[in-house]
Amino acid sequence: MSNAYGRTHYCGEVRETNVGEKVQLKGWVQKRRDLGGLIFLDLRDRTGLVQVVFNPEVSKEALEIAETIRSEFVLDIKGEVFARDEKTYNEKISTGKIEVHADEVTILNKAKTTPFLVDDEDVSEELRLKYRYIDLRRSEMQETFKLRHRVTKTIRDFLDEETFLEVETPMLTKSTPEGARDYLVPSRVHDGKFYALPQSPQLFKQLLMVSGFDRYYQIARCFRDEDLRADRQPEFTQVDIETSFMDQEQLLSMMERMMASVMSVSKGIDITTPFPRMTYDEAMARYGSDKPDTRFEMELVDVTEIVKDSNFKVFASAQQVKAINVKGAADNYSRKDIDKLTEFVKPYGAKGLAWLKVDAEGISGPIAKFFSEEEIAALQQTLGSEAGDLLLFVADAKNVVASSLGALRVKLGKELDLIDQTKFNFLWVTDWPLLEFDPESGRYSAAHHPFTMPLRDDLKYFDESPEKIRAEAYDLVLNGYELGGGSLRIYERDIQEKMFKMLGFSEEEAREQFGFLLDAFEYGTPPHAGIAFGLDRLVMILAGRTNLRDTIAFPKTANASCLLTEAPGEVSTDQLLDLNLQVRL
Amino acid sequence: MSNAYGRTHYCGEVRETNVGEKVQLKGWVQKRRDLGGLIFLDLRDRTGLVQVVFNPEVSKEALEIAETIRSEFVLDIKGEVFARDEKTYNEKISTGKIEVHADEVTILNKAKTTPFLVDDEDVSEELRLKYRYIDLRRSEMQETFKLRHRVTKTIRDFLDEETFLEVETPMLTKSTPEGARDYLVPSRVHDGKFYALPQSPQLFKQLLMVSGFDRYYQIARCFRDEDLRADRQPEFTQVDIETSFMDQEQLLSMMERMMASVMSVSKGIDITTPFPRMTYDEAMARYGSDKPDTRFEMELVDVTEIVKDSNFKVFASAQQVKAINVKGAADNYSRKDIDKLTEFVKPYGAKGLAWLKVDAEGISGPIAKFFSEEEIAALQQTLGSEAGDLLLFVADAKNVVASSLGALRVKLGKELDLIDQTKFNFLWVTDWPLLEFDPESGRYSAAHHPFTMPLRDDLKYFDESPEKIRAEAYDLVLNGYELGGGSLRIYERDIQEKMFKMLGFSEEEAREQFGFLLDAFEYGTPPHAGIAFGLDRLVMILAGRTNLRDTIAFPKTANASCLLTEAPGEVSTDQLLDLNLQVRL
Repeated sequence: MSNAYGRTHYCGEVRETNVGEKVQLKGWVQKRRDLGGLIFLDLRDRTGLVQVVFNPEVSKEALEIAETIRSEFVLDIKGEVFARDEKTYNEKISTGKIEVHADEVTILNKAKTTPFLVDDEDVSEELRLKYRYIDLRRSEMQETFKLRHRVTKTIRDFLDEETFLEVETPMLTKSTPEGARDYLVPSRVHDGKFYALPQSPQLFKQLLMVSGFDRYYQIARCFRDEDLRADRQPEFTQVDIETSFMDQEQLLSMMERMMASVMSVSKGIDITTPFPRMTYDEAMARYGSDKPDTRFEMELVDVTEIVKDSNFKVFASAQQVKAINVKGAADNYSRKDIDKLTEFVKPYGAKGLAWLKVDAEGISGPIAKFFSEEEIAALQQTLGSEAGDLLLFVADAKNVVASSLGALRVKLGKELDLIDQTKFNFLWVTDWPLLEFDPESGRYSAAHHPFTMPLRDDLKYFDESPEKIRAEAYDLVLNGYELGGGSLRIYERDIQEKMFKMLGFSEEEAREQFGFLLDAFEYGTPPHAGIAFGLDRLVMILAGRTNLRDTIAFPKTANASCLLTEAPGEVSTDQLLDLNLQVRL
Repeated sequence: MSNAYGRTHYCGEVRETNVGEKVQLKGWVQKRRDLGGLIFLDLRDRTGLVQVVFNPEVSKEALEIAETIRSEFVLDIKGEVFARDEKTYNEKISTGKIEVHADEVTILNKAKTTPFLVDDEDVSEELRLKYRYIDLRRSEMQETFKLRHRVTKTIRDFLDEETFLEVETPMLTKSTPEGARDYLVPSRVHDGKFYALPQSPQLFKQLLMVSGFDRYYQIARCFRDEDLRADRQPEFTQVDIETSFMDQEQLLSMMERMMASVMSVSKGIDITTPFPRMTYDEAMARYGSDKPDTRFEMELVDVTEIVKDSNFKVFASAQQVKAINVKGAADNYSRKDIDKLTEFVKPYGAKGLAWLKVDAEGISGPIAKFFSEEEIAALQQTLGSEAGDLLLFVADAKNVVASSLGALRVKLGKELDLIDQTKFNFLWVTDWPLLEFDPESGRYSAAHHPFTMPLRDDLKYFDESPEKIRAEAYDLVLNGYELGGGSLRIYERDIQEKMFKMLGFSEEEAREQFGFLLDAFEYGTPPHAGIAFGLDRLVMILAGRTNLRDTIAFPKTANASCLLTEAPGEVSTDQLLDLNLQVRL
């Protein structure tokens, strides 16, 4: 109730303890009901709703004004708080045991009929985005942005406590050819030259370590001109962190305490630290994913050895055969349903999906006949299967097996409601590969970025088998989403040179792309390490939403336009002339 | 000393109480001195310096390594803390009473000879900006960014306490033809269309009020593609605030408490609230400035009436004659010096600068002869002048008198060292004019923006004398700098229509420029008000600097380029093709 300037209380904060008090409230009309000569209004502000009653016995004038009032009018109301009849308690709202009898009402502003009712759940997203300012009035939205504020504040407080300095890095910076597409900003002063909006403050935060800032953070807006998916936005917000002189263990443990603080403040949940850790290899092997959702089991089981001599040629000849045991689901999936699952895995490269159903007598299914009794027994034992289980197999190259079965596992987990939605499973995935091999170009590229430190134990692989080199890189996964990731950075010249050579850069090319950073690295660079978290996604998970747009006040659609402001828009010829640009026809 | 991961202490935090302790330090070599078989290093991190001594009696190996060490090497040092001889105390540094005798040293990284020494004060700004990461190692820079962090955190904490929600608004938004030049961002998906980077989140923060967010803040990056001056940057940071249902008095008093909190936390100064207030008219009359520096007097005094019948035709015929009394400065300014002052006021439109010197006998100077004894007596009395004073006059149109004498006053205040640099004089300037008349176009334009509320008392002037209308607008001034400003916003349709009409907008034009906001205003808009402060400038004043670049980690030069990254830069033909753009020849 504190700080309610311009009124005595916020609407949602009037309580039984206020009965008998005169209050002044300001807010929006959610709904008006006329009943037996009285008028009832639900008055709304960001704290919730309160029922206001207009009664001719209290004030005839107020009632007369109330008769002209419609939804979404903005009101200034004075009145007295009364306890409601127990029969009329409204348990759905925080103020459901009281009501305010208005003796004075001022219409601060009128409203046209809104394109949709604020509490209407059944409105297209397009309409919501066009009238975002009405959509944002929904209590669900208001709660999401309160949560976002609280999460942000908690992170800032934690990092401040740990002596991090918040430093702002430039938005108008230089285009780098690596990574995703840059948004470009033409320069008016420098003909034909462009700034780029940052994909992340990566280079600047490393420079701040070179400057001795020791611990840096920024909640930074980042930009990627990508083809958009449901969970991408052209601009997104990143909790960006860099530290000097800390090792991986110290950094991860600090980040765990930060997340524990976020969970405690935002959700009232005490999460256990340290978080479980899993190497990249183990995550891929057990879950077919580098961001496993560990809230349910159904792990991928390698049965290559068991079936390698079977009569089922597809299995016997495959690089790898893995299976998931869909417990008790044999009866849930008809042959037709399984056909659909087969279609589902195809985009992941799987040529097919083999299946077996387990019953009291043994196994059935079109491929059952190919296996010996020993093979069946071994499969059953390895998969821990019992009557009623459905076994799904993919036989293919390792990466195809992982991605198709991994995706199928997640799909089935949701479909069969195996996921405990109250759980928040944090997981570190460590020891990522340093390099990715592109068979087309025959070249290696950096799996993270060219400044990621290799594991010292793996330096020996540089010449002979670079694909074996692991990186001092780590991702934080929450409930199957990648929350963020980071790495220790290379700070020694000889390792950096090896890395560039491995990436096929000549010395000149490296200099052209990263010149100022390489220069900086020669003037006294401390060992440093960092991490970055996607704030939009973190808030999305904590708010129990599945769409990033719900966590961004004014988001863009899938084709990067804003339905509210109609950005991007036309600009004037003068503006283009100023920039010395013309649009191609 | 807490949280010093990777070491036992930060360099600047070792104290006499640590004498006898084993410590581990990490940092940069500020300086190496060899003396009598010993080596002394000043080791630096963001907390300061500590002296490390290498002594063959402690460790021969460490000494041998130390012999190879040069400035800006990054070291890991273990050793024992010893008290220094009182004779060798160094009062300049926090650790000046102790030294660390190293028994182990690891070179974490080497450094080439830096282009300038970190503690060298005499380096060109160009070189500093090119090697910004070295420049940022200076303790003065580190302290500025610690101050910036602390100021930012204090503001966030205050606003959080006052139930403001931090909401992020878009960076990729729509170009508006008003105001300064927009930075444009071409869209790849929407041919020939552009986003604009925001000049401020103005429209979005007003929309958030329409959405019922009640109190919004954001520390927002803003962009203006202006011709740059010393105190402008193409991107700058704004503490952006908007509130619903609060009146001007409530908002200003809240902001005063916020600034008091900033002053207390960042400077340890208790400033007095409420801040003095002055109307725009009074500020212009007394100081010739809408952002008066009230740390010194030398106010502008109107002498029009006194000299209107004098024989000095320039005075007698002028719209206005004002003077400043430069106390005791008659002997400081020769005729030649005064000629220079005359040159100084010319760019402000003044055709000349008249002067009189006061001595025991009366007044002297080339125009002294034009005045009668009575006129001289009246001038002396009104200006409170006495022997030794220098009186400077400008006779011209009111606005020319104000701007030229106002600027001269500030120049002289600095030149004569009249300003108490320990003072922090906050001042509200209120009751700004709503409209500005442009004699060229014969049209009025909005002095702030078209949504600024007129004073209700002045609504009557709309038809007859619009120049008389004052706005519910306020600026916060600190030591002669505009820290920020804001206004109550129009939320009633009829006033808004009057305003647009006054600005010469047809209904269609208003809709074209501000369509979505006008739409929003029709669906239930609360009374709302806001303010925005320039964070860079606030930090600059608090840090006692005079250049905004010193408060921005990676600033741009006066022609909007970054000497470190060489942004803006060339982009590839492919990038331009993607955007369907070409550069004109």
